Amino acid sequence: MGVIIVEVMPKPEILDPQGKAILGAFPRLGFTDFVGVRQGKRFELTVDGAVTEAHLEQARKAAEELLSNPIIENVVSVRALED
Amino acid sequence: MGVIIVEVMPKPEILDPQGKAILGAFPRLGFTDFVGVRQGKRFELTVDGAVTEAHLEQARKAAEELLSNPIIENVVSVRALED
Amino acid sequence: MGVIIVEVMPKPEILDPQGKAILGAFPRLGFTDFVGVRQGKRFELTVDGAVTEAHLEQARKAAEELLSNPIIENVVSVRALED
Amino acid sequence: MGVIIVEVMPKPEILDPQGKAILGAFPRLGFTDFVGVRQGKRFELTVDGAVTEAHLEQARKAAEELLSNPIIENVVSVRALED
Repeated sequence: MGVIIVEVMPKPEILDPQGKAILGAFPRLGFTDFVGVRQGKRFELTVDGAVTEAHLEQARKAAEELLSNPIIENVVSVRALED
Repeated sequence: MGVIIVEVMPKPEILDPQGKAILGAFPRLGFTDFVGVRQGKRFELTVDGAVTEAHLEQARKAAEELLSNPIIENVVSVRALED
Repeated sequence: MGVIIVEVMPKPEILDPQGKAILGAFPRLGFTDFVGVRQGKRFELTVDGAVTEAHLEQARKAAEELLSNPIIENVVSVRALED
Repeated sequence: MGVIIVEVMPKPEILDPQGKAILGAFPRLGFTDFVGVRQGKRFELTVDGAVTEAHLEQARKAAEELLSNPIIENVVSVRALED
């Protein structure tokens, strides 16, 4: 079984309420080192057998069409998981 | 500015409704290569200056305490983003 | 077009990291009245024509099978949207 | 303890990848009645004592500033939970 990793993050200029909430909560929990937090998504797509270039091409399309919202998110990475 | 990446995924034995929905939607969109989909989260934590071991230690604690739900999720990776 | 509302919330005994983050962030933003925050999901399912009991029955099944994770969430409401 | 419900939904004109995925997955699971799905968020904010107008005002501000992303989401309801 091969696995393809797709990573999606909010665009830099977009407000990210979840990241903002986490950043705001950090100091009370003693986490004072962080000056920014962004929350995105990470998908694992499984294929039978080894990951091929055709699988990656399909994953890139799926990432644009179903796994991300192009208005607010960027697909930052589509790659085979190294064993 | 240094960036730490935290990756959180649903535990393998846990039902993942979002992944299941995506997998179910794929065939109608022409994506027929994938036999499994899991959806997790990816965080970018920013620190002033370079990422130190102390930053990573704090990120590991934050990942366990606030960025994941230990009942259903695993923290799969906490690492500095390579430039 | 009829609309069915499905509401899903984390179980009371379950840690809700997103709610916890929001609660932690509130004081710094000047929101000091709130002593608890839980974050759940709200779905709008659209049907052709008026909502029937059969539609609601199907929505209840969908809520249990695909819209919620029974390990950590409760379906708190499935109802037709009042016009 | 009083509870305020905040409901947030994606704007109608905005692509909602999660709703699209659920809609695409429905037919294979035998759910054939639904012609549209939108996924939003539902928050429960708890206050000490009964919910007052001042609490609701603070909840409305929190909904706009932290609980929603105004680029892609609308706050559709802020109200006290009826007992």
